[in-house]
Amino acid sequence: MKPTLYLVSLMLIFTSCSNIKVEKQKKITINKTDSTVIKHFFNSALTQGKSYEWLRDLTSNIGGRLSGSPEAQKAVEWGENLMKKSNFDKVWLQPVMVPHWIRGEKEQAYFTSNNIKYKVPICALGGSIATPKNGISGEVIEVKSLKEAEQLGEKLRGKIVFFNRPFDATLIETFRAYGGCVDQRVYGAKTTGKFGVLGVIVRSMTSYIDDYPHTGNMHYGDIPENKKVPTAAISTKASNLLSEKLKENPSLKFYFKQNCKTLPDAPSFNVIGEITGSKYPKKYITVGGHLDSWDLAQGAQDDGAGIVQSLAVAQLLKTNQIKPKHTIRVVLFMNEENGLRGGKKYAEEAKTKNEIHIAALESDAGGFTPRGFSFSATLKNQDLIKSWKTLLAPYGLNDFEEGHSGADIGPLKSKTISLVDYRPDSQRYFKYHHSALDTFEIVNKRELELGSASLTSMIYLLDTYLN
Amino acid sequence: MKPTLYLVSLMLIFTSCSNIKVEKQKKITINKTDSTVIKHFFNSALTQGKSYEWLRDLTSNIGGRLSGSPEAQKAVEWGENLMKKSNFDKVWLQPVMVPHWIRGEKEQAYFTSNNIKYKVPICALGGSIATPKNGISGEVIEVKSLKEAEQLGEKLRGKIVFFNRPFDATLIETFRAYGGCVDQRVYGAKTTGKFGVLGVIVRSMTSYIDDYPHTGNMHYGDIPENKKVPTAAISTKASNLLSEKLKENPSLKFYFKQNCKTLPDAPSFNVIGEITGSKYPKKYITVGGHLDSWDLAQGAQDDGAGIVQSLAVAQLLKTNQIKPKHTIRVVLFMNEENGLRGGKKYAEEAKTKNEIHIAALESDAGGFTPRGFSFSATLKNQDLIKSWKTLLAPYGLNDFEEGHSGADIGPLKSKTISLVDYRPDSQRYFKYHHSALDTFEIVNKRELELGSASLTSMIYLLDTYLN
Repeated sequence: MKPTLYLVSLMLIFTSCSNIKVEKQKKITINKTDSTVIKHFFNSALTQGKSYEWLRDLTSNIGGRLSGSPEAQKAVEWGENLMKKSNFDKVWLQPVMVPHWIRGEKEQAYFTSNNIKYKVPICALGGSIATPKNGISGEVIEVKSLKEAEQLGEKLRGKIVFFNRPFDATLIETFRAYGGCVDQRVYGAKTTGKFGVLGVIVRSMTSYIDDYPHTGNMHYGDIPENKKVPTAAISTKASNLLSEKLKENPSLKFYFKQNCKTLPDAPSFNVIGEITGSKYPKKYITVGGHLDSWDLAQGAQDDGAGIVQSLAVAQLLKTNQIKPKHTIRVVLFMNEENGLRGGKKYAEEAKTKNEIHIAALESDAGGFTPRGFSFSATLKNQDLIKSWKTLLAPYGLNDFEEGHSGADIGPLKSKTISLVDYRPDSQRYFKYHHSALDTFEIVNKRELELGSASLTSMIYLLDTYLN
Repeated sequence: MKPTLYLVSLMLIFTSCSNIKVEKQKKITINKTDSTVIKHFFNSALTQGKSYEWLRDLTSNIGGRLSGSPEAQKAVEWGENLMKKSNFDKVWLQPVMVPHWIRGEKEQAYFTSNNIKYKVPICALGGSIATPKNGISGEVIEVKSLKEAEQLGEKLRGKIVFFNRPFDATLIETFRAYGGCVDQRVYGAKTTGKFGVLGVIVRSMTSYIDDYPHTGNMHYGDIPENKKVPTAAISTKASNLLSEKLKENPSLKFYFKQNCKTLPDAPSFNVIGEITGSKYPKKYITVGGHLDSWDLAQGAQDDGAGIVQSLAVAQLLKTNQIKPKHTIRVVLFMNEENGLRGGKKYAEEAKTKNEIHIAALESDAGGFTPRGFSFSATLKNQDLIKSWKTLLAPYGLNDFEEGHSGADIGPLKSKTISLVDYRPDSQRYFKYHHSALDTFEIVNKRELELGSASLTSMIYLLDTYLN
């Protein structure tokens, strides 16, 4: 379907549909025009890519990796070991103190209306306090926004506030829908705590109607200790049911119990591997994802995918004998989920050391089929990045636009740096995100490896054309 | 990420991220500019779409629907009933005789090398004869192409021929890889039967290395009865293992047993629903998928998805009060998999009745996230269709190109008709295709419903601009 691409591939790599021989591919003297190099990245990823097996290892043998947990520490060691076996010129751990929140015993919730008890799938939000030992029980007030809650004010006293504004399912780019709702999860407790509410429950951040609660971070902000209340997410199906039953019986009683707590900050690390630039060793291009994850599953799409894709950049450059001009840093950031301490630390140290960072690329939207990149850069570099669309569209990378540029690399922002965010297809992401469904089984090998090649191609182009 | 789209949606449908109210949406007086109408199709599909629940019903309550089977007949009734409950002006069954091949008892296979027995996941190919009751056993000759087999000629006598040319994993559009390999499955037995081979086994048509054999159609062509040999597909993992063991021990023995047979042709039907055109009732635009499927699973992606998406076209037109100018026919074609009798019959009857068919659209590439359309049309209409890309790109429909235009609608081809094929993302399709994995569980609701809206948008544009 893509004549140019197929022509290149036919000329260079194989004839007809015969088996691609890895050995043959390796022996080819690469004609280093951009389109040829990029085709080689994709060929290598699709035939020799290691991302999928690395992800299997990380997710199956370590699992969920919440900041401060033993699993997060194992993941640090896993990343360091893997880097040490790869083609990095230098591998090190960058120490960073991270929040240490633990979920404790599994949460429980139900509500009772007209003497019928309805079980509710629930999970505490990251950063929340526990309920008293025996849980809390109270009437529920449903609201659709922070503003509505503010306006209700004193009427919320002694109640459980239920934030139930759903995902806007009509938005094609589902991260927009997430962005349009997540304030309820993050600031629900901060906004209503001052009114003496009993607790806060929030509809899970997904358009899928199912039985899985989705966790995620929340902040109490600067409210006093005695105004902090337990906060949890409930499944979308339970949210719909609760809303329906509240219409029938506004004084129904909701009960929940959770056992989470925040321990003192814990020591942890960003894991960094460096390939020294051949021409500009003191100018840096960073590519990364985040190594920590939520604890309900294995953190496969969020963000195991970004981790293995970032690691694959080094592998695919090496396989295709591309020696970068600038120093390439692969960074496995710690604590994106509940603190962003890794990203902040990395930028802080870069500043302290007067490092010149010309570009950074992040993958934190899952290992789905490629769609494009968003970026934040100077006008000149925006035009440059957009001009690469013709090179990358044959791989499904059609969407090039200014926009979000990645949480972990965000703190690197300066007047000159180009920050780029990988944007795979987003239709399935929020089915799994922060829930018990985010396991290795829901990752597709081809989609993941295509992402690895997409990142490598972007790093190659940034290295080739920026300065 | 798509300013124009979001602007339209913001203006017309909702403010901020508040819940989309179906009632509100229905009351809106639609400004029938194309982009607005299309946005409404997508909004409706994503909030009120029925495709996913229809597919659940078809796949879970009926399951696999091989031509001539009781399940295929149930699917015909299912389709007719559903259409009769919808907004069609006319619903009817178009009789067609179909091949009636049955698999019989589950197949068995293994090979033995150096006294070790290796079990082989196997399935008969559709149209194949059975082995003798006790199966067949023989030495194996591995080949990579029909041409290689031809050249070996008499050396194949008494052997089992093993076609093992793999999918080309480097092709981004995976249907190209399928097209590059499937000749082995279709013509392997026809090509080698004349050399007195014992049987034919074929590597499954997928780039995924796993334990699932993928069935599919094969043809003996015009070879005499006594030259027909049993033909089966084995899993890719078993193919790799067999190939490896053959290198160590070229005289290893392969055994397989299958119990399939071809019964006399059976009566069946295309299911057709018609919405009469307001301006050109005698000019037809067809949209369809195929109702039959292979028998190893539920035929969810192939092609339950195309069936429910085609049915959704009528629903989404109605929901959005679009009255087509031309007569729209939704056709659930029978027997795409092993005969194309439904597609042929439909075209034949159209010709007999001198019907004027101006366009036809097919969905038979799964219910994955939208990517684009391929088409076959006059140069003028090709340009017209390509010009719609700007309208559809906000929904991920970026790929517009001349090419394949659908098996079932293919027989309608004429000098004037525009044939269009829906092309969703193809990365996952061949993981499931024709195997036991093609079940409802692997279909994603949003991806499926986006496809329904994509088809509806294309039908709307064909209806609006063609004549």
